[in-house]
Amino acid sequence: MFVIGERINGMFTDVKKAIESGDEEPIRDLASRQVEAGADALDLNVGPSRGDEVENLVWLAEVAGDETDVPLCLDTAKFEVMSEAIKECDSPVIINSTKAIEEQLEKYVSLASEHDAQLIALTIDQEGVPSDVDSRVQMGATIATKAMEGGLGMEDLYIDPVILPVNVAPKQPQRVLEALRQLTMLSDPAPNFILGLSNVSQGCKERSLLNAGYVTMAVSAGLNAAIMDALDDHLMRAAITADVLMEKQLYCDDYVSAYLRNR
Amino acid sequence: MFVIGERINGMFTDVKKAIESGDEEPIRDLASRQVEAGADALDLNVGPSRGDEVENLVWLAEVAGDETDVPLCLDTAKFEVMSEAIKECDSPVIINSTKAIEEQLEKYVSLASEHDAQLIALTIDQEGVPSDVDSRVQMGATIATKAMEGGLGMEDLYIDPVILPVNVAPKQPQRVLEALRQLTMLSDPAPNFILGLSNVSQGCKERSLLNAGYVTMAVSAGLNAAIMDALDDHLMRAAITADVLMEKQLYCDDYVSAYLRNR
Repeated sequence: MFVIGERINGMFTDVKKAIESGDEEPIRDLASRQVEAGADALDLNVGPSRGDEVENLVWLAEVAGDETDVPLCLDTAKFEVMSEAIKECDSPVIINSTKAIEEQLEKYVSLASEHDAQLIALTIDQEGVPSDVDSRVQMGATIATKAMEGGLGMEDLYIDPVILPVNVAPKQPQRVLEALRQLTMLSDPAPNFILGLSNVSQGCKERSLLNAGYVTMAVSAGLNAAIMDALDDHLMRAAITADVLMEKQLYCDDYVSAYLRNR
Repeated sequence: MFVIGERINGMFTDVKKAIESGDEEPIRDLASRQVEAGADALDLNVGPSRGDEVENLVWLAEVAGDETDVPLCLDTAKFEVMSEAIKECDSPVIINSTKAIEEQLEKYVSLASEHDAQLIALTIDQEGVPSDVDSRVQMGATIATKAMEGGLGMEDLYIDPVILPVNVAPKQPQRVLEALRQLTMLSDPAPNFILGLSNVSQGCKERSLLNAGYVTMAVSAGLNAAIMDALDDHLMRAAITADVLMEKQLYCDDYVSAYLRNR
Protein backbone atom coordinates (compact mmCIF):
# COMPACT_ATOMS: atom_id res chain seq x y z
CA MET A 1 0.00 0.00 0.00
CA PHE A 2 1.43 3.33 -1.09
CA VAL A 3 0.12 5.90 1.39
CA ILE A 4 0.06 9.58 0.45
CA GLY A 5 -0.52 11.67 3.56
CA GLU A 6 -3.34 14.17 2.97
CA ARG A 7 -2.83 16.50 5.89
CA ILE A 8 -0.78 19.34 4.36
CA ASN A 9 -3.79 20.99 2.80
CA GLY A 10 -4.83 24.63 3.10
CA MET A 11 -8.38 23.50 3.77
CA PHE A 12 -7.15 22.82 7.31
CA THR A 13 -6.92 26.03 9.31
CA ASP A 14 -3.47 25.29 10.77
CA VAL A 15 -1.99 24.78 7.31
CA LYS A 16 -3.72 27.85 5.87
CA LYS A 17 -2.38 29.97 8.72
CA ALA A 18 1.14 28.56 8.33
CA ILE A 19 1.13 29.33 4.59
CA GLU A 20 -0.16 32.87 5.05
CA SER A 21 2.31 33.69 7.84
CA GLY A 22 5.24 31.78 6.35
CA ASP A 23 5.55 29.72 9.55
CA GLU A 24 7.50 26.55 8.66
CA GLU A 25 7.03 24.76 11.97
CA PRO A 26 3.47 23.40 11.53
CA ILE A 27 4.36 22.16 8.04
CA ARG A 28 7.57 20.47 9.23
CA ASP A 29 5.65 18.88 12.08
CA LEU A 30 2.88 17.56 9.81
CA ALA A 31 5.45 16.29 7.30
CA SER A 32 7.54 14.36 9.82
CA ARG A 33 4.58 13.02 11.79
CA GLN A 34 2.84 11.69 8.68
CA VAL A 35 5.98 9.96 7.42
CA GLU A 36 6.59 8.47 10.85
CA ALA A 37 3.00 7.20 10.92
CA GLY A 38 3.42 5.42 7.60
CA ALA A 39 3.04 7.93 4.77
CA ASP A 40 5.17 7.03 1.73
CA ALA A 41 4.58 10.43 0.12
CA LEU A 42 3.00 13.76 1.10
CA ASP A 43 0.17 15.54 -0.66
CA LEU A 44 0.63 19.32 -0.80
CA ASN A 45 -2.38 21.52 -1.49
CA VAL A 46 -2.51 25.25 -0.74
CA GLY A 47 -6.30 25.21 -0.50
CA PRO A 48 -7.98 28.60 -0.16
CA SER A 49 -4.93 30.32 1.37
CA ARG A 50 -4.28 33.91 0.30
CA GLY A 51 -1.34 34.79 -1.97
CA ASP A 52 0.18 33.45 -5.17
CA GLU A 53 -0.68 29.78 -5.65
CA VAL A 54 2.62 28.87 -7.35
CA GLU A 55 4.67 30.59 -4.64
CA ASN A 56 2.66 28.98 -1.86
CA LEU A 57 2.90 25.51 -3.39
CA VAL A 58 6.65 25.85 -3.98
CA TRP A 59 7.09 27.03 -0.40
CA LEU A 60 5.20 23.97 0.92
CA ALA A 61 7.39 21.75 -1.28
CA GLU A 62 10.57 23.40 -0.01
CA VAL A 63 9.63 23.05 3.65
CA ALA A 64 8.28 19.50 3.34
CA GLY A 65 11.20 18.47 1.11
CA ASP A 66 13.66 19.86 3.61
CA GLU A 67 12.03 17.95 6.46
CA THR A 68 11.61 14.54 4.75
CA ASP A 69 12.89 12.75 1.67
CA VAL A 70 9.64 11.18 0.47
CA PRO A 71 8.05 12.08 -2.89
CA LEU A 72 5.82 15.15 -2.88
CA CYS A 73 2.41 15.06 -4.44
CA LEU A 74 1.66 18.48 -5.95
CA ASP A 75 -2.08 18.90 -5.68
CA THR A 76 -3.69 21.57 -7.85
CA ALA A 77 -6.32 21.52 -10.57
CA LYS A 78 -4.51 24.29 -12.54
CA PHE A 79 -2.09 23.19 -15.23
CA GLU A 80 -0.23 26.53 -15.18
CA VAL A 81 0.35 26.27 -11.43
CA MET A 82 1.52 22.65 -11.79
CA SER A 83 3.90 23.36 -14.67
CA GLU A 84 5.48 26.31 -12.84
CA ALA A 85 5.72 24.66 -9.40
CA ILE A 86 7.17 21.40 -10.68
CA LYS A 87 10.20 23.27 -12.08
CA GLU A 88 11.15 24.43 -8.60
CA CYS A 89 10.79 21.03 -6.96
CA ASP A 90 13.92 19.09 -5.94
CA SER A 91 12.06 16.07 -4.49
CA PRO A 92 10.53 13.35 -6.67
CA VAL A 93 7.11 14.60 -7.74
CA ILE A 94 3.68 13.03 -8.15
CA ILE A 95 1.39 15.22 -10.25
CA ASN A 96 -2.09 15.37 -8.69
CA SER A 97 -4.03 15.43 -11.00
CA THR A 98 -5.37 15.40 -14.54
CA LYS A 99 -8.87 14.52 -15.72
CA ALA A 100 -9.53 11.91 -18.41
CA ILE A 101 -9.95 14.49 -21.18
CA GLU A 102 -7.70 13.69 -24.14
CA GLU A 103 -6.01 17.04 -24.72
CA GLN A 104 -5.54 17.56 -20.98
CA LEU A 105 -4.11 14.06 -20.59
CA GLU A 106 -1.61 14.71 -23.37
CA LYS A 107 -0.36 17.90 -21.70
CA TYR A 108 -0.03 16.25 -18.30
CA VAL A 109 1.59 13.08 -19.60
CA SER A 110 4.11 15.22 -21.43
CA LEU A 111 4.76 17.29 -18.29
CA ALA A 112 5.24 14.14 -16.21
CA SER A 113 7.63 12.62 -18.75
CA GLU A 114 9.62 15.84 -19.02
CA HIS A 115 10.15 16.02 -15.24
CA ASP A 116 10.45 12.27 -14.51
CA ALA A 117 7.33 12.66 -12.40
CA GLN A 118 4.50 10.26 -11.66
CA LEU A 119 0.94 11.13 -12.62
CA ILE A 120 -2.46 10.72 -10.98
CA ALA A 121 -5.34 10.71 -13.50
CA LEU A 122 -8.99 10.86 -12.43
CA THR A 123 -11.85 9.17 -14.26
CA ILE A 124 -13.59 12.50 -14.67
CA ASP A 125 -14.43 14.06 -18.03
CA GLN A 126 -16.25 17.15 -19.30
CA GLU A 127 -19.48 15.76 -17.81
CA GLY A 128 -17.97 15.36 -14.34
CA VAL A 129 -17.73 12.21 -12.21
CA PRO A 130 -19.53 9.29 -13.88
CA SER A 131 -22.05 7.45 -11.75
CA ASP A 132 -21.63 4.10 -13.50
CA VAL A 133 -18.93 1.43 -13.70
CA ASP A 134 -18.51 1.33 -17.49
CA SER A 135 -17.65 5.01 -17.92
CA ARG A 136 -14.99 4.72 -15.25
CA VAL A 137 -13.49 1.71 -17.00
CA GLN A 138 -13.60 3.41 -20.40
CA MET A 139 -11.93 6.53 -19.03
CA GLY A 140 -9.34 4.33 -17.33
CA ALA A 141 -8.57 2.78 -20.71
CA THR A 142 -8.22 6.22 -22.27
CA ILE A 143 -5.87 7.28 -19.50
CA ALA A 144 -3.68 4.18 -19.84
CA THR A 145 -3.55 4.52 -23.63
CA LYS A 146 -2.58 8.19 -23.50
CA ALA A 147 0.10 7.45 -20.91
CA MET A 148 1.61 4.71 -23.07
CA GLU A 149 1.50 6.90 -26.17
CA GLY A 150 3.25 9.67 -24.25
CA GLY A 151 5.99 7.36 -22.97
CA LEU A 152 4.86 7.27 -19.35
CA GLY A 153 5.39 3.79 -17.86
CA MET A 154 2.49 2.06 -16.12
CA GLU A 155 4.53 2.07 -12.89
CA ASP A 156 4.42 5.89 -12.98
CA LEU A 157 0.67 6.12 -13.59
CA TYR A 158 -2.03 6.18 -10.90
CA ILE A 159 -5.64 5.84 -12.05
CA ASP A 160 -8.20 7.22 -9.58
CA PRO A 161 -11.77 5.96 -10.17
CA VAL A 162 -13.10 8.72 -7.87
CA ILE A 163 -15.12 7.79 -4.80
CA LEU A 164 -18.03 9.98 -3.66
CA PRO A 165 -19.48 10.34 -0.15
CA VAL A 166 -21.56 7.35 0.95
CA ASN A 167 -24.12 9.58 2.67
CA VAL A 168 -25.11 11.30 -0.58
CA ALA A 169 -24.21 8.64 -3.18
CA PRO A 170 -24.79 5.25 -1.49
CA LYS A 171 -24.39 3.18 -4.67
CA GLN A 172 -20.97 4.63 -5.50
CA PRO A 173 -18.80 2.60 -3.09
CA GLN A 174 -19.81 -0.72 -4.68
CA ARG A 175 -19.51 0.69 -8.21
CA VAL A 176 -16.01 2.00 -7.60
CA LEU A 177 -15.02 -1.45 -6.30
CA GLU A 178 -16.36 -3.07 -9.46
CA ALA A 179 -14.56 -0.47 -11.59
CA LEU A 180 -11.31 -1.24 -9.72
CA ARG A 181 -11.75 -4.98 -10.34
CA GLN A 182 -12.25 -4.41 -14.05
CA LEU A 183 -9.48 -1.81 -14.33
CA THR A 184 -6.90 -4.16 -12.81
CA MET A 185 -7.40 -6.36 -15.88
CA LEU A 186 -6.86 -3.46 -18.27
CA SER A 187 -3.20 -4.00 -19.07
CA ASP A 188 -0.24 -6.12 -18.05
CA PRO A 189 1.70 -4.66 -16.37
CA ALA A 190 -1.16 -2.78 -14.77
CA PRO A 191 -0.94 0.86 -13.68
CA ASN A 192 -1.37 1.78 -10.03
CA PHE A 193 -4.81 2.41 -8.58
CA ILE A 194 -5.43 5.18 -6.11
CA LEU A 195 -8.34 6.84 -4.33
CA GLY A 196 -8.83 10.11 -2.50
CA LEU A 197 -10.10 7.89 0.28
CA SER A 198 -11.48 10.42 2.76
CA ASN A 199 -14.07 11.52 0.24
CA VAL A 200 -16.09 8.36 0.97
CA SER A 201 -16.87 9.71 4.44
CA GLN A 202 -17.11 13.44 3.65
CA GLY A 203 -19.80 14.93 5.87
CA CYS A 204 -20.23 11.67 7.81
CA LYS A 205 -19.84 11.15 11.53
CA GLU A 206 -17.95 7.86 11.75
CA ARG A 207 -15.20 8.92 9.37
CA SER A 208 -12.46 6.65 10.64
CA LEU A 209 -14.69 3.55 10.57
CA LEU A 210 -15.95 4.29 7.06
CA ASN A 211 -12.48 5.13 5.71
CA ALA A 212 -11.00 1.97 7.24
CA GLY A 213 -13.83 -0.18 5.92
CA TYR A 214 -13.61 1.24 2.44
CA VAL A 215 -9.84 1.07 2.09
CA THR A 216 -10.06 -2.59 3.15
CA MET A 217 -12.66 -3.37 0.47
CA ALA A 218 -10.76 -1.36 -2.13
CA VAL A 219 -7.46 -3.16 -1.46
CA SER A 220 -9.28 -6.47 -1.97
CA ALA A 221 -10.50 -5.08 -5.33
CA GLY A 222 -7.02 -4.03 -6.50
CA LEU A 223 -6.25 -0.66 -4.92
CA ASN A 224 -2.55 -0.23 -4.15
CA ALA A 225 -2.36 3.45 -3.20
CA ALA A 226 -4.45 6.04 -1.39
CA ILE A 227 -4.38 9.68 -0.46
CA MET A 228 -5.51 9.37 3.11
CA ASP A 229 -5.15 10.40 6.73
CA ALA A 230 -1.88 8.71 7.71
CA LEU A 231 -2.27 10.15 11.22
CA ASP A 232 -5.38 8.01 11.81
CA ASP A 233 -3.90 4.98 13.53
CA HIS A 234 -7.08 2.90 13.19
CA LEU A 235 -7.10 3.56 9.45
CA MET A 236 -3.40 2.79 8.97
CA ARG A 237 -3.73 -0.50 10.85
CA ALA A 238 -6.71 -1.44 8.67
CA ALA A 239 -4.80 -0.63 5.47
CA ILE A 240 -1.76 -2.66 6.56
CA THR A 241 -4.01 -5.56 7.59
CA ALA A 242 -5.69 -5.46 4.18
CA ASP A 243 -2.28 -5.86 2.54
CA VAL A 244 -1.55 -8.90 4.72
CA LEU A 245 -4.92 -10.50 3.90
CA MET A 246 -4.28 -9.99 0.17
CA GLU A 247 -0.75 -11.39 0.51
CA LYS A 248 0.89 -8.10 -0.47
CA GLN A 249 2.85 -8.46 2.72
CA LEU A 250 3.67 -11.76 4.40
CA TYR A 251 2.06 -12.39 7.75
CA CYS A 252 4.15 -12.22 10.89
CA ASP A 253 2.86 -11.73 14.41
CA ASP A 254 3.98 -8.11 14.52
CA TYR A 255 3.06 -7.31 10.96
CA VAL A 256 1.94 -3.75 11.69
CA SER A 257 5.28 -2.64 13.10
CA ALA A 258 7.15 -4.80 10.57
CA TYR A 259 5.34 -2.98 7.76
CA LEU A 260 6.24 0.44 9.11
CA ARG A 261 9.86 -0.60 9.67
CA ASN A 262 10.34 -2.19 6.25
CA ARG A 263 9.06 0.62 4.06
CA MET B 1 -25.32 -9.12 8.02
CA PHE B 2 -26.60 -12.15 9.90
CA VAL B 3 -24.30 -12.60 12.89
CA ILE B 4 -24.10 -15.98 14.63
CA GLY B 5 -22.34 -15.57 17.98
CA GLU B 6 -19.58 -18.15 18.33
CA ARG B 7 -18.89 -17.93 22.04
CA ILE B 8 -20.97 -20.82 23.47
CA ASN B 9 -18.39 -23.43 22.54
CA GLY B 10 -16.89 -26.08 24.81
CA MET B 11 -13.45 -25.20 23.46
CA PHE B 12 -13.62 -22.24 25.84
CA THR B 13 -12.87 -23.29 29.42
CA ASP B 14 -15.78 -21.40 30.99
CA VAL B 15 -18.28 -23.12 28.71
CA LYS B 16 -16.70 -26.55 29.17
CA LYS B 17 -16.87 -26.13 32.96
CA ALA B 18 -20.47 -24.93 32.81
CA ILE B 19 -21.50 -27.93 30.73
CA GLU B 20 -19.74 -30.44 32.97
CA SER B 21 -21.12 -28.94 36.18
CA GLY B 22 -24.57 -28.13 34.77
CA ASP B 23 -24.16 -24.49 35.74
CA GLU B 24 -26.63 -22.47 33.68
CA GLU B 25 -25.41 -19.02 34.64
CA PRO B 26 -22.32 -18.70 32.37
CA ILE B 27 -24.38 -19.94 29.40
CA ARG B 28 -27.26 -17.53 30.11
CA ASP B 29 -24.76 -14.71 30.47
CA LEU B 30 -22.99 -15.51 27.18
CA ALA B 31 -26.33 -15.90 25.40
CA SER B 32 -27.77 -12.57 26.52
CA ARG B 33 -24.54 -10.63 26.12
CA GLN B 34 -24.00 -11.87 22.56
CA VAL B 35 -27.56 -11.03 21.51
CA GLU B 36 -27.27 -7.60 23.09
CA ALA B 37 -23.99 -7.00 21.22
CA GLY B 38 -25.62 -7.79 17.88
CA ALA B 39 -25.81 -11.58 17.45
CA ASP B 40 -28.84 -12.66 15.41
CA ALA B 41 -28.37 -16.32 16.33
CA LEU B 42 -26.19 -18.34 18.71
CA ASP B 43 -23.84 -21.15 17.77
CA LEU B 44 -23.86 -24.01 20.29
CA ASN B 45 -20.95 -26.46 20.34
CA VAL B 46 -20.17 -28.78 23.25
CA GLY B 47 -16.51 -29.03 22.26
CA PRO B 48 -14.44 -31.53 24.19
CA SER B 49 -16.65 -31.47 27.29
CA ARG B 50 -17.18 -34.79 29.09
CA GLY B 51 -20.51 -36.57 28.99
CA ASP B 52 -23.06 -37.50 26.36
CA GLU B 53 -22.84 -35.16 23.35
CA VAL B 54 -26.56 -35.22 22.59
CA GLU B 55 -27.49 -34.51 26.20
CA ASN B 56 -24.95 -31.71 26.47
CA LEU B 57 -26.05 -30.08 23.23
CA VAL B 58 -29.73 -30.31 24.18
CA TRP B 59 -28.91 -28.78 27.56
CA LEU B 60 -27.11 -25.85 25.90
CA ALA B 61 -30.10 -25.38 23.59
CA GLU B 62 -32.53 -25.43 26.52
CA VAL B 63 -30.59 -22.90 28.55
CA ALA B 64 -29.83 -20.58 25.61
CA GLY B 65 -33.38 -20.94 24.27
CA ASP B 66 -34.79 -20.07 27.67
CA GLU B 67 -32.63 -16.95 27.90
CA THR B 68 -33.13 -15.56 24.37
CA ASP B 69 -35.48 -16.09 21.44
CA VAL B 70 -32.95 -16.07 18.59
CA PRO B 71 -32.36 -19.13 16.38
CA LEU B 72 -29.89 -21.67 17.72
CA CYS B 73 -27.14 -23.01 15.52
CA LEU B 74 -26.50 -26.65 16.50
CA ASP B 75 -22.83 -27.21 15.81
CA THR B 76 -21.63 -30.81 15.58
CA ALA B 77 -19.97 -32.86 12.84
CA LYS B 78 -21.92 -36.01 13.82
CA PHE B 79 -25.19 -36.65 11.98
CA GLU B 80 -26.52 -38.93 14.75
CA VAL B 81 -25.96 -36.20 17.35
CA MET B 82 -27.63 -33.61 15.13
CA SER B 83 -30.63 -35.73 14.29
CA GLU B 84 -31.25 -36.59 17.97
CA ALA B 85 -30.63 -33.08 19.36
CA ILE B 86 -32.79 -31.30 16.78
CA LYS B 87 -35.84 -33.28 17.96
CA GLU B 88 -35.55 -31.75 21.43
CA CYS B 89 -35.11 -28.18 20.22
CA ASP B 90 -37.99 -25.71 20.62
CA SER B 91 -36.18 -22.71 19.08
CA PRO B 92 -35.70 -22.27 15.33
CA VAL B 93 -32.64 -24.29 14.37
CA ILE B 94 -29.71 -23.77 12.02
CA ILE B 95 -27.91 -27.05 11.29
CA ASN B 96 -24.14 -26.55 11.41
CA SER B 97 -23.02 -28.33 9.25
CA THR B 98 -22.79 -30.76 6.37
CA LYS B 99 -19.94 -31.29 3.93
CA ALA B 100 -20.46 -31.16 0.16
CA ILE B 101 -20.58 -34.94 -0.21
CA GLU B 102 -23.69 -36.02 -2.10
CA GLU B 103 -25.07 -38.73 0.17
CA GLN B 104 -24.31 -36.61 3.26
CA LEU B 105 -25.98 -33.57 1.70
CA GLU B 106 -29.10 -35.60 0.94
CA LYS B 107 -29.38 -36.76 4.56
CA TYR B 108 -28.87 -33.25 5.96
CA VAL B 109 -31.19 -31.53 3.47
CA SER B 110 -33.85 -34.05 4.36
CA LEU B 111 -33.27 -33.49 8.09
CA ALA B 112 -33.48 -29.70 7.63
CA SER B 113 -36.68 -29.95 5.59
CA GLU B 114 -38.26 -32.32 8.11
CA HIS B 115 -37.61 -29.93 11.01
CA ASP B 116 -38.11 -26.61 9.16
CA ALA B 117 -34.49 -25.87 9.93
CA GLN B 118 -31.87 -23.90 8.02
CA LEU B 119 -28.68 -25.60 6.85
CA ILE B 120 -25.02 -24.60 6.67
CA ALA B 121 -23.07 -26.57 4.06
CA LEU B 122 -19.28 -26.40 3.79
CA THR B 123 -17.32 -26.64 0.53
CA ILE B 124 -15.41 -29.63 1.90
CA ASP B 125 -15.45 -33.08 0.33
CA GLN B 126 -13.72 -36.43 0.91
CA GLU B 127 -10.38 -34.79 0.08
CA GLY B 128 -10.83 -32.05 2.67
CA VAL B 129 -10.79 -28.27 2.16
CA PRO B 130 -9.93 -27.40 -1.45
CA SER B 131 -7.12 -24.91 -1.94
CA ASP B 132 -8.46 -23.49 -5.20
CA VAL B 133 -11.39 -21.33 -6.27
CA ASP B 134 -12.93 -23.68 -8.84
CA SER B 135 -13.44 -26.62 -6.48
CA ARG B 136 -15.18 -24.34 -4.00
CA VAL B 137 -17.50 -23.06 -6.72
CA GLN B 138 -18.22 -26.57 -8.01
CA MET B 139 -19.02 -27.81 -4.51
CA GLY B 140 -21.20 -24.75 -3.99
CA ALA B 141 -23.14 -25.71 -7.11
CA THR B 142 -23.52 -29.29 -5.84
CA ILE B 143 -24.79 -27.98 -2.51
CA ALA B 144 -27.34 -25.64 -4.10
CA THR B 145 -28.56 -28.37 -6.47
CA LYS B 146 -29.01 -30.91 -3.69
CA ALA B 147 -30.83 -28.35 -1.57
CA MET B 148 -33.24 -27.56 -4.41
CA GLU B 149 -33.81 -31.24 -5.17
CA GLY B 150 -34.54 -31.83 -1.48
CA GLY B 151 -37.02 -28.97 -1.27
CA LEU B 152 -34.89 -26.65 0.85
CA GLY B 153 -35.34 -23.03 -0.23
CA MET B 154 -32.29 -20.92 -1.04
CA GLU B 155 -33.24 -18.58 1.84
CA ASP B 156 -32.71 -21.50 4.22
CA LEU B 157 -29.32 -22.50 2.82
CA TYR B 158 -25.94 -21.10 3.91
CA ILE B 159 -22.93 -22.02 1.79
CA ASP B 160 -19.60 -21.71 3.64
CA PRO B 161 -16.55 -21.58 1.30
CA VAL B 162 -14.27 -22.28 4.30
CA ILE B 163 -11.55 -19.82 5.22
CA LEU B 164 -8.19 -21.05 6.56
CA PRO B 165 -5.73 -19.19 8.79
CA VAL B 166 -3.76 -16.48 6.95
CA ASN B 167 -0.58 -17.33 8.84
CA VAL B 168 -0.39 -20.85 7.40
CA ALA B 169 -2.36 -20.46 4.14
CA PRO B 170 -1.70 -16.89 2.94
CA LYS B 171 -3.28 -17.36 -0.51
CA GLN B 172 -6.60 -18.60 0.89
CA PRO B 173 -8.17 -15.28 1.90
CA GLN B 174 -8.08 -13.93 -1.69
CA ARG B 175 -9.25 -17.26 -3.12
CA VAL B 176 -12.24 -17.44 -0.79
CA LEU B 177 -13.19 -13.89 -1.83
CA GLU B 178 -13.06 -14.89 -5.48
CA ALA B 179 -15.11 -18.02 -4.72
CA LEU B 180 -17.70 -15.86 -2.95
CA ARG B 181 -17.92 -13.51 -5.94
CA GLN B 182 -18.49 -16.41 -8.30
CA LEU B 183 -20.89 -18.23 -5.96
CA THR B 184 -23.16 -15.18 -5.66
CA MET B 185 -23.86 -15.59 -9.38
CA LEU B 186 -24.75 -19.27 -8.97
CA SER B 187 -28.52 -18.97 -8.78
CA ASP B 188 -31.25 -16.37 -8.55
CA PRO B 189 -32.42 -16.14 -5.83
CA ALA B 190 -28.99 -16.85 -4.37
CA PRO B 191 -28.45 -18.82 -1.18
CA ASN B 192 -26.83 -17.16 1.83
CA PHE B 193 -23.05 -17.08 2.20
CA ILE B 194 -21.39 -17.59 5.53
CA LEU B 195 -17.90 -18.02 6.98
CA GLY B 196 -16.51 -19.33 10.23
CA LEU B 197 -14.75 -15.99 10.33
CA SER B 198 -12.40 -16.42 13.29
CA ASN B 199 -10.57 -19.19 11.47
CA VAL B 200 -8.83 -16.59 9.30
CA SER B 201 -6.86 -15.42 12.35
CA GLN B 202 -6.46 -18.76 14.16
CA GLY B 203 -3.04 -18.74 15.86
CA CYS B 204 -2.44 -15.08 14.95
CA LYS B 205 -1.74 -12.22 17.32
CA GLU B 206 -3.86 -9.39 15.89
CA ARG B 207 -7.05 -11.41 15.76
CA SER B 208 -9.53 -8.56 16.01
CA LEU B 209 -7.81 -6.56 13.25
CA LEU B 210 -7.58 -9.55 10.92
CA ASN B 211 -11.18 -10.65 11.57
CA ALA B 212 -12.48 -7.11 11.03
CA GLY B 213 -10.46 -6.70 7.84
CA TYR B 214 -11.55 -10.02 6.42
CA VAL B 215 -15.24 -9.67 7.21
CA THR B 216 -15.14 -6.28 5.48
CA MET B 217 -13.60 -7.74 2.33
CA ALA B 218 -15.94 -10.73 2.40
CA VAL B 219 -19.07 -8.56 2.70
CA SER B 220 -17.89 -6.64 -0.37
CA ALA B 221 -17.59 -10.01 -2.16
CA GLY B 222 -21.11 -11.14 -1.23
CA LEU B 223 -20.96 -12.55 2.30
CA ASN B 224 -24.19 -11.94 4.24
CA ALA B 225 -23.65 -14.05 7.36
CA ALA B 226 -20.81 -15.05 9.68
CA ILE B 227 -20.17 -17.17 12.72
CA MET B 228 -18.04 -14.71 14.65
CA ASP B 229 -17.18 -13.08 17.94
CA ALA B 230 -20.17 -10.80 18.51
CA LEU B 231 -18.58 -9.63 21.77
CA ASP B 232 -15.71 -8.01 19.84
CA ASP B 233 -16.95 -4.44 19.49
CA HIS B 234 -14.28 -3.47 16.94
CA LEU B 235 -15.32 -6.41 14.77
CA MET B 236 -19.05 -5.73 15.07
CA ARG B 237 -18.56 -2.07 14.10
CA ALA B 238 -16.50 -3.14 11.08
CA ALA B 239 -19.19 -5.61 9.97
CA ILE B 240 -21.97 -3.04 10.32
CA THR B 241 -19.87 -0.46 8.46
CA ALA B 242 -19.30 -2.96 5.65
CA ASP B 243 -23.07 -3.33 5.28
CA VAL B 244 -23.46 0.45 5.03
CA LEU B 245 -20.71 0.73 2.39
CA MET B 246 -22.38 -2.02 0.32
CA GLU B 247 -25.78 -0.33 0.72
CA LYS B 248 -27.24 -3.25 2.68
CA GLN B 249 -28.18 -0.66 5.26
CA LEU B 250 -28.83 2.98 4.51
CA TYR B 251 -26.37 5.46 5.94
CA CYS B 252 -27.38 7.63 8.85
CA ASP B 253 -25.04 9.41 11.23
CA ASP B 254 -25.63 6.91 14.02
CA TYR B 255 -25.75 3.86 11.78
CA VAL B 256 -24.06 1.55 14.30
CA SER B 257 -26.66 2.04 17.00
CA ALA B 258 -29.45 2.22 14.38
CA TYR B 259 -28.36 -1.19 13.09
CA LEU B 260 -28.40 -2.75 16.54
CA ARG B 261 -31.77 -1.18 17.34
CA ASN B 262 -33.44 -2.20 14.07
CA ARG B 263 -32.60 -5.88 14.03
